[in-house]
Amino acid sequence: MKVVLIGAGNLATNLGKALKKAGIEVVQVYSRTKKSAKLLSDILVCNWTIDVQEIVDDADYYIFSVKDNVLEQLIIDVCSHIKTGIFLHTAGSMSCDVFKNKVNKYGVFYPLQTFSKNSYVDFENIPIFIEGNSIEVCQQLEMLAKKISINVYTLTSEVRQYIHLSAVWVCNFVNHCYSIGQDILAQHGIPFKVLLPLIYETTKKVSYLQPKEAQTGPAVRGDKNIIEKHIKLMHDNPQWQELYKNFSQNIYDMSSSKKKTL
Amino acid sequence: MKVVLIGAGNLATNLGKALKKAGIEVVQVYSRTKKSAKLLSDILVCNWTIDVQEIVDDADYYIFSVKDNVLEQLIIDVCSHIKTGIFLHTAGSMSCDVFKNKVNKYGVFYPLQTFSKNSYVDFENIPIFIEGNSIEVCQQLEMLAKKISINVYTLTSEVRQYIHLSAVWVCNFVNHCYSIGQDILAQHGIPFKVLLPLIYETTKKVSYLQPKEAQTGPAVRGDKNIIEKHIKLMHDNPQWQELYKNFSQNIYDMSSSKKKTL
Repeated sequence: MKVVLIGAGNLATNLGKALKKAGIEVVQVYSRTKKSAKLLSDILVCNWTIDVQEIVDDADYYIFSVKDNVLEQLIIDVCSHIKTGIFLHTAGSMSCDVFKNKVNKYGVFYPLQTFSKNSYVDFENIPIFIEGNSIEVCQQLEMLAKKISINVYTLTSEVRQYIHLSAVWVCNFVNHCYSIGQDILAQHGIPFKVLLPLIYETTKKVSYLQPKEAQTGPAVRGDKNIIEKHIKLMHDNPQWQELYKNFSQNIYDMSSSKKKTL
Repeated sequence: MKVVLIGAGNLATNLGKALKKAGIEVVQVYSRTKKSAKLLSDILVCNWTIDVQEIVDDADYYIFSVKDNVLEQLIIDVCSHIKTGIFLHTAGSMSCDVFKNKVNKYGVFYPLQTFSKNSYVDFENIPIFIEGNSIEVCQQLEMLAKKISINVYTLTSEVRQYIHLSAVWVCNFVNHCYSIGQDILAQHGIPFKVLLPLIYETTKKVSYLQPKEAQTGPAVRGDKNIIEKHIKLMHDNPQWQELYKNFSQNIYDMSSSKKKTL
């Protein structure tokens, strides 16, 4: 089984490693920049190119892992000279139909995880959401996905976008809360590491408690005094004040299931 | 060394267990309600009371772990008949001075953690922030804290409130992001557990990457199309739409360090 990776970013890097580990041959890496293409091809020990016309035309899978805003044009460019093989993208919010009328066999291969180039991720437990434009493609995708993960789900593009949306909440927005916490402490000379036991416990709790049951703090208690104090402490950052207010109100509303004002 | 716990909530329960484990005698539990007082006294094998006047007057420490809005009145009530011992509270945002002119020796004993009654927490690595109204009290508090934790810091009330504020961000607001993620998935019949590998990896990353370096997703990429799609998907929840917009804008601003509009 031969795979071409289109893109050489965080996701392509991690996926490439997982495929190789599972014994699947990555034959070529395409990237816009020579540096990225070469870097990933060195890791995977394969060819690389920065020229769309030089992408090999005999692979079984072409997996696009590029920014959403360049995906559509890149598909047009690649598909102008390659007609066989299964074409896949890895984007949570892009429809499967982005390949429609451009190639015969296509689908989506969406691993639900946050990837950084320098952080090794074991794919085995990562949920992979797949979609294909035919039953045959779905079956082949399922086989491919099961080689690297034990959690494979077939899903429509419609539902997948909600998974991506919830992922933004529990990953990107959570990580941003960490950034804000770090900034607040740094302004007072306190290292971020003092927050780590609290961060670990918060994460651990939701593996056996519903997040709503696990909630603590001033907002769920409706403690207006503390909320007002905290908002004042952030007087030099109106964006954080606004986020804090809205968070507290929403936590209170969701816990009391009533639309009261804090 | 004899300790009286005033309050029998999540924090008092976990702290009582940790003190007992360290060989410190909890002699009595006071709570407003008989049920809570009895429950905790059963765990700690000690006396309990719901009558402030019955709180023993010969303990070495009186540790108040009650809601901030009842703390001040309760201190007045308890201190009306007890004059010796060291009086402590465990609140992140309350000043040490809440005890001023009421007793001679007082301070703060603030463990930075989220506590649930049914989730056992090992205190050993929890940072404990202490403050005393004299050098002697500080020294005694340090000894007490070091019996249950290896991370003890002396801190002013002024700085402690910023620690509490950052804790709200990295715990309560993070947990609320989990709640929202769960709700979005539940509306489409998908179990919360599919998010757990993503949640674990997001948390794990900040132990070796700065949160700002660890950030991924549409906001940090400035991907307006996805952001607009996501906001539309939440059309039945204007509060989430507002939070999502503000989060995305703030992530973008902080990553680009410029005040541009997404």
